[in-house]
Amino acid sequence: MTHEYVDIDTLKFLLYNVHQVEELLQAERFKEYDKTSLDIFLDSIKTFSDTALHPFIKEMDEKPSVFKNGKINVHPQFENIIKTAGELGIIGAIFDFEDGGMQLPSTVFQAAHFIMNAANNHVPGYFGLTSGSANLILSFGSQELKETYIPNMLDLTWGGTMCLTEPQAGSSLSDVMTVATPTDKDYYQIKGQKIFISAGDHQFCSNFVHLVLARIKGAPTGTKGVSLFVVPKNRPTENGEFTYNDAAIEGEFEKMGQKGYCTTHIIFGDNDDCRGWLVGEANKGLSYMFQMMNEARISTGLMGAAIASAAYYSSLKYANERPQGRKLNSSGQKNAEEEQTLIINHPDIKRLLFSQKAVVEGSMSLILQSAIYLDKEMTSTSAEEKEKYNLLLELLTPIVKTYPAEQGIQSISNAVQILGGYGFCFDFMPQQYYRDIRIIALYEGTTGIQSLDLLGRKITIKKGKALELLAIEIQETIKNASAFDELKPFANTLLENLSLVQKVISTLMPHAMKGNYERFLADATVFMDFFGTIVIGWQWLKTATVANQTLADENGNQSQEFYNSKIHTMKFFYTYEMSKTKGLAKTLMNEEELTIQVSKDMF
Amino acid sequence: MTHEYVDIDTLKFLLYNVHQVEELLQAERFKEYDKTSLDIFLDSIKTFSDTALHPFIKEMDEKPSVFKNGKINVHPQFENIIKTAGELGIIGAIFDFEDGGMQLPSTVFQAAHFIMNAANNHVPGYFGLTSGSANLILSFGSQELKETYIPNMLDLTWGGTMCLTEPQAGSSLSDVMTVATPTDKDYYQIKGQKIFISAGDHQFCSNFVHLVLARIKGAPTGTKGVSLFVVPKNRPTENGEFTYNDAAIEGEFEKMGQKGYCTTHIIFGDNDDCRGWLVGEANKGLSYMFQMMNEARISTGLMGAAIASAAYYSSLKYANERPQGRKLNSSGQKNAEEEQTLIINHPDIKRLLFSQKAVVEGSMSLILQSAIYLDKEMTSTSAEEKEKYNLLLELLTPIVKTYPAEQGIQSISNAVQILGGYGFCFDFMPQQYYRDIRIIALYEGTTGIQSLDLLGRKITIKKGKALELLAIEIQETIKNASAFDELKPFANTLLENLSLVQKVISTLMPHAMKGNYERFLADATVFMDFFGTIVIGWQWLKTATVANQTLADENGNQSQEFYNSKIHTMKFFYTYEMSKTKGLAKTLMNEEELTIQVSKDMF
Repeated sequence: MTHEYVDIDTLKFLLYNVHQVEELLQAERFKEYDKTSLDIFLDSIKTFSDTALHPFIKEMDEKPSVFKNGKINVHPQFENIIKTAGELGIIGAIFDFEDGGMQLPSTVFQAAHFIMNAANNHVPGYFGLTSGSANLILSFGSQELKETYIPNMLDLTWGGTMCLTEPQAGSSLSDVMTVATPTDKDYYQIKGQKIFISAGDHQFCSNFVHLVLARIKGAPTGTKGVSLFVVPKNRPTENGEFTYNDAAIEGEFEKMGQKGYCTTHIIFGDNDDCRGWLVGEANKGLSYMFQMMNEARISTGLMGAAIASAAYYSSLKYANERPQGRKLNSSGQKNAEEEQTLIINHPDIKRLLFSQKAVVEGSMSLILQSAIYLDKEMTSTSAEEKEKYNLLLELLTPIVKTYPAEQGIQSISNAVQILGGYGFCFDFMPQQYYRDIRIIALYEGTTGIQSLDLLGRKITIKKGKALELLAIEIQETIKNASAFDELKPFANTLLENLSLVQKVISTLMPHAMKGNYERFLADATVFMDFFGTIVIGWQWLKTATVANQTLADENGNQSQEFYNSKIHTMKFFYTYEMSKTKGLAKTLMNEEELTIQVSKDMF
Repeated sequence: MTHEYVDIDTLKFLLYNVHQVEELLQAERFKEYDKTSLDIFLDSIKTFSDTALHPFIKEMDEKPSVFKNGKINVHPQFENIIKTAGELGIIGAIFDFEDGGMQLPSTVFQAAHFIMNAANNHVPGYFGLTSGSANLILSFGSQELKETYIPNMLDLTWGGTMCLTEPQAGSSLSDVMTVATPTDKDYYQIKGQKIFISAGDHQFCSNFVHLVLARIKGAPTGTKGVSLFVVPKNRPTENGEFTYNDAAIEGEFEKMGQKGYCTTHIIFGDNDDCRGWLVGEANKGLSYMFQMMNEARISTGLMGAAIASAAYYSSLKYANERPQGRKLNSSGQKNAEEEQTLIINHPDIKRLLFSQKAVVEGSMSLILQSAIYLDKEMTSTSAEEKEKYNLLLELLTPIVKTYPAEQGIQSISNAVQILGGYGFCFDFMPQQYYRDIRIIALYEGTTGIQSLDLLGRKITIKKGKALELLAIEIQETIKNASAFDELKPFANTLLENLSLVQKVISTLMPHAMKGNYERFLADATVFMDFFGTIVIGWQWLKTATVANQTLADENGNQSQEFYNSKIHTMKFFYTYEMSKTKGLAKTLMNEEELTIQVSKDMF
């Protein structure tokens, strides 16, 4: 069956059957919910996406947000979108009831987020940044900050942003130079500029609440001197009105994709009249920001997977409609008298489609898996359990961010390819998705940064405990899969790959032990590719096992074909993708040191 | 050293040292040339590219060609470009002296073509199509056709095009439906429409000469009933003037890249007044077209490699200028007091740069290798030699077309990545190259079609003789490399890979023997990836051997670093790319048959 941009049946199968989201509902926090109420929420998001988001994705590319006279103007459809999203409670979906939120499991919200991003990836960032910045205020801000800002953010009357990057401080946040000068009042004077600020301004919110990383005068250098401030575009005055806070939109970055999602350049305090309010304690800004980072990174990977989902269904529709070429007969010839066949009947087109399905659904599963760990960390009552789920989440986060970003590029390139020359033309969607997705590997820490995080921090965290815990989870999947003869060979392959991970790590680790960190981390991105592939292989085996079990129990509510397609795509992933891990391991264990101590005149 | 878009020193090293182009000059056909005259030609092309092409590439993206009132308007700079290219003799560079050409070796012309494409990939297609269509007339047309059309095409007063694709006939040319009705004159009445016609019209040529595939009324179905016609936009009248030939520009395809290079939709004979002149014999059109196809496909692959070259140097420049982050000390920490380091000093950035260099220069070498075979086929005096070079060329052509197209996408994605968030912005070039290159895998036979050609035709041609001949060439390289201890391990790897190719082919071939062609060819594209990687590995070993020999002989005119960089990049390619061939072989030899006989409801 062809879908427009997302397969809700698969999403629900992963949510309820593979990842057993209903188990979460036993927690006190989620006791108001049952499957029916979750379904109602997801269905309302799907309706919103069908009617308010998806019909406008092409237009948002053609009529991008524009900067003029100090203001950003976004597509007029945002008026309706902002209003409806506010009414649906999307901003506070995972917040506590007492903060005006819906107290939904994060896992369910990520599923909803997937639907919206697949429908129109130019839009949900506006919600996500408002939600994320409100969450920072709720988690670390004073009561006054909460009261002043949260209510208007919850219904999207105001938007929120995260202001990290500066011209000289991209990946290197320790180099943030925006200055906060204390005053004898409750605020600081802010001066500096921030670039690449997504959702930084538009005509449909009356105020913007910027969460700004800055350095209090005299603070230590590096990351330990960075504080977090609330810096509104318009600040409250004593009489309850609002006045402009000298936070000027200086321009917009024109981009090759996600053109409806504005990317602004903001100058704070050019007229020395910009006030900021400290969030939490001084010099702890980066640690606050990073407590939100796991969710931000899951959301970013999700955005990539969702764009790939939309491209997949766009190319599948074409493959089901376009006649071209003929099947070969047993002499290897074609009969020109025959009618042309639909291109979906060519094996190479099927390969291109399965490769997309494997990336899209494999990523979707890993995203939900991580969200499950996030929810379990939050709701577990034992400290040990909390630590377990926290470590699992920490380990998976860089992969959730990166796998859909990097493999999504190839996946969407495959969608373009299916359309032939039309794939390159503005008349069809894949070329837009090909442009849109290219930002994902750059947002929220580039692939290089994520890979350093994975190998340099997460693999070694607590003496490798996170990896040990993940290995236990993977072995559980292997055990369950081995109950089915059809799945056994793939379970064995996954087990072999788990050993290969150990082998690679024990080859690399001595470099770190000897203090040669540059050598240890030189191929971190290759390690990401290697380990990420195995982790997705784990998710596919888990999915195929549940599909197989459902067929065996004859208790599924989907067609046999549906469950068979999961098993088949798992086999495809193991045959076409898992086959590359040995080569990657060989690269990782090479002794050439080709990227270290090399003169830059070599290029 | 950083170049703007191409490294002429490397191009000349490959041309003169690795591929020994001077050997060709012994042939009667090229006896007018020596190294000095070739250098003068290449230098004039470089100057033309520096002054007339490269400065306009960004503008051509921002101000694309547009269709209005039945006409295409291209960027105004084309006036100068068309005039200068005509004067430089680019159109007839490889034509015989007696046809008004320069009779240059194809290899040298491809080198020139590489420079122009790297400078501005939106432009050289206009030359290539005029040259190609003129060549078709010269090779197969009547004396009258030659006299009528060639002189004005040679100086680009008129442009030429190739009209193959129709809405229902993209990859499947046997379905061409444009009709040619005989008349009692020397012409046919042409009726039909053609799409995706590159360079189909613009304001700076006074006429266009379309080479059109059409079916003479009553001709057999399939490829055997397709004939080739000259169908000018304006046809000559008896009084020597020209009148409109009912060949209407119906529109332009708006594309995500190569926006300066127009892609037109042409309707022939909508008013029943379109005349076409048969080229050569009836029903042989496709075979004529395909005799030009090797060069067209080499040129297309070349275009991809050249775009990747421009992106590589663009990202290298940025890496050499952008400070960000710091090196890790022996405790794995950074010192925030230190100044930031240039990003080129980070191993992951070096990896991204080497991966680009490996694709760009490896492809450049393979392109020149193929052109050498083309020239040798043309100039050999023995039939056996002619056949040998023809077979080698036939085997390599689909790879020359595909490797730079597919790997170029990844290569340019790596260039984008080096720039971080700026990589996604219109202010920098990599994003444009990322869009531009995506067409290459679709032009002139998609990757799927090229892969079917490689495995289904070229590997099996003359009972595998082409592959035997290539194996001899590769073994020669292995032997030469083995003379150097430093290169021996890589020579051994290449030898192992050669055996692996044999193993894969003998696993696949029985399917063809049994008449199961669909199974035989199902993973042809994976075979392309596998075999293409090994072929580029061969070119890198050949290049490194010559570099090593030059260092040993101390007779190079470049720095030691230059030659070392070739050896180093070879090692990089073997360590990071050749390591994937075993996994691909495993995929190819799998017995799952996952893309055949699968219900389309599986998606």
